[in-house]
Order: sequence, then structure tokens, then C-alpha cells
Amino acid sequence: MSLTQYYTATTLDGFIADPDNSLDWLFTREQDEDGPMNYGAFIAHVGALAMGSTTYQWILGHEFADKPPEQWKWPYDIPGWVFTHRQLQVVPGAPIEFTSAAVTEVHQQMAAAAGDRNIWIVGGGDLAGLGEAGLLDEVIVSIAPVTLGAGAPLLPRRIELRLDETARNGDLVCARYAVVRAPG
Amino acid sequence: MSLTQYYTATTLDGFIADPDNSLDWLFTREQDEDGPMNYGAFIAHVGALAMGSTTYQWILGHEFADKPPEQWKWPYDIPGWVFTHRQLQVVPGAPIEFTSAAVTEVHQQMAAAAGDRNIWIVGGGDLAGLGEAGLLDEVIVSIAPVTLGAGAPLLPRRIELRLDETARNGDLVCARYAVVRAPG
Repeated sequence: MSLTQYYTATTLDGFIADPDNSLDWLFTREQDEDGPMNYGAFIAHVGALAMGSTTYQWILGHEFADKPPEQWKWPYDIPGWVFTHRQLQVVPGAPIEFTSAAVTEVHQQMAAAAGDRNIWIVGGGDLAGLGEAGLLDEVIVSIAPVTLGAGAPLLPRRIELRLDETARNGDLVCARYAVVRAPG
Repeated sequence: MSLTQYYTATTLDGFIADPDNSLDWLFTREQDEDGPMNYGAFIAHVGALAMGSTTYQWILGHEFADKPPEQWKWPYDIPGWVFTHRQLQVVPGAPIEFTSAAVTEVHQQMAAAAGDRNIWIVGGGDLAGLGEAGLLDEVIVSIAPVTLGAGAPLLPRRIELRLDETARNGDLVCARYAVVRAPG
């Protein structure tokens, strides 16, 4: 069965990026690429992904900063949706659709594209609205050993979870949660 | 050696209380009182404690709400400091000192009172300043399976940590961190 999964790194105090949209607090950490809840094992089961415009532009700024557009290589070969109301720079050949439709509507397209594979919510503010719409199945976090006190919030909503798995991976505490849906 | 420890429960998104100062998101969770990083084992090594006025008033409101003051029983027999600039209701016989002095100054008094036992930072906004002053040794958290999106922040500062221990206890992910002090 296909799951919609929010898989992300976070600080101990619940920020996925610092106030300057930097992830420098994350990339300094040690982790075992073959260890618990690693990215490789996760992405192998993903068939579609979605992100907000800030995450998209972060990728452009960090992966392609010093290259001309014809040398850009989008890091994912699975279909992706970028939620934005603005005109964003296109990565040539990337399987990306820009959308400003409601997340619940786009979720149907993602589910069709993913088939029996999972849908990865990469990150970005209103994607958390999937939780309220009852469309988010899992939250999988790698918690970095730092507090920031400010930044982009992990999940700006009240969402009830159930702990399904936890393990240490290097410097990180990893945890996988099922989203508990309100009865009815 | 005496350690200054911030021991608290938090939501997955880093709040120690909801916007109404409620802990209802915490008390519904299952945990093993004899399990990893349990309160009993922790408090047995504590010789002094400190909290902010919000935490103090929360205790008064929740433990004593339906009793007259002569029936109040303060839950701790170790010396405690409550940081406040206001006049707060006194619990008869409680070993509490109200203070508006700098946290660094009070920390010396707490250390003297604690001897070779530890100092518990129960919670409250500016006590996190101990971290910046280089006086906080450990952060020990029990992470509840819920996000709130708003509330009282776990630690409103950037503090670098080192993961020393993690384990599951019932519904909670527990983690013990050493505070990494800046060189020099």
C-alpha cells in the first residue's frame, strides 16, 4: 500500500531550517548511510515527491550555484510537484510540475504517479495541511543534536502521532511515527 | 561531579507547553516508570532545582487547585529557586526562594546547596540563558508523539549538543545530550 510520508531532518527544537534557510546545523553531523532509517532505503520506495518553493529554491541555490543551467542535474528522477504561486526557474529536463492547486487535489495526481510506491513530502509550510486533510500517513524524522530557537517549523499544526520505531543513527535520533487520524 | 541538567518533556516540534500552558498532550502518554531515563532515577540524584514563574504557577494551579493553602504540599523536599519579578503566592513550608537576580549568580547558590548532587532546571524561558553562560551541562528530553505548532519553546537559543544516550520509553523517545561549550 502506498504511504504519504513526511521524511525530514529537524533540530531538537523542531526547526527544519534556520532563519536564513541554512542547513549548516545538519551537514556537520555524522551518520551511517546504511544505518537505521537511512535515506537510501527510504527513497528506494518513493514514487512521487512534493515540496514547497523555498525547498525548491534551496536546492537550486545549493546544488547549482556555480553552474550554468545547461549543466544542472535535478537530483530526483521520480515525478515531483512544487507548490508555488510564483514563476520559478525551471531545471531543464527535470520531471517537475509547478502547481498552485489545493494540496488535496494534487495529492490525487501524486498517488496516481506513485502507484504502489510511496509519496515523499520533502518539506515546506503548507504541505503540513495534508495532515489536517487526513492524507499524511507517516512522519519520519532525524533529529540533529542542536537547538536553534528560530527557523522554519517542522509541522505548524497540532498533529497526533503514534511512535512506531526509533533508533540512533550516528549523531542523530531517528523516529518513525504514524499519523493518528481523528475518528470519523 | 555535580551536573546542571535541563530535564523536561517536549513535543516533537519543540514545545514544553501548549499556548494555554497546558500539558494535556503529555499526560495521555504511556511510559514505564522504571524504564530508560525515568524521573525517579533522575530525581534521586538532584540536590537543587530552579524554575520560572510560569512553571511555579502551573504547579500551584494543578496540584492545589481545589485545596485551601494549609493543605498544600509542595512536591519537592530539595531546595528550589523560582525566578520571578513578581510577588507570587507562597506555599507554606516549601523550601523555595524567590529571586530576580541573574541566573549566573543564583547558580552559585544552587551549586552550594546541591553539593555533589545535580541541579535540575525544571523549565522556564530565561533559564536557557544558563546554556549561553556555559553553566548548563546536559539536556535530557522525553519527546511526546505529537506536534502542536505553537506554545512555550523548549530552548529559545542556539545551543550545540552531543547525543550521549537515546532509548524508547513507552510512547516517548528519550534522549540525553551534553551541552557542547564553545572553545575558550
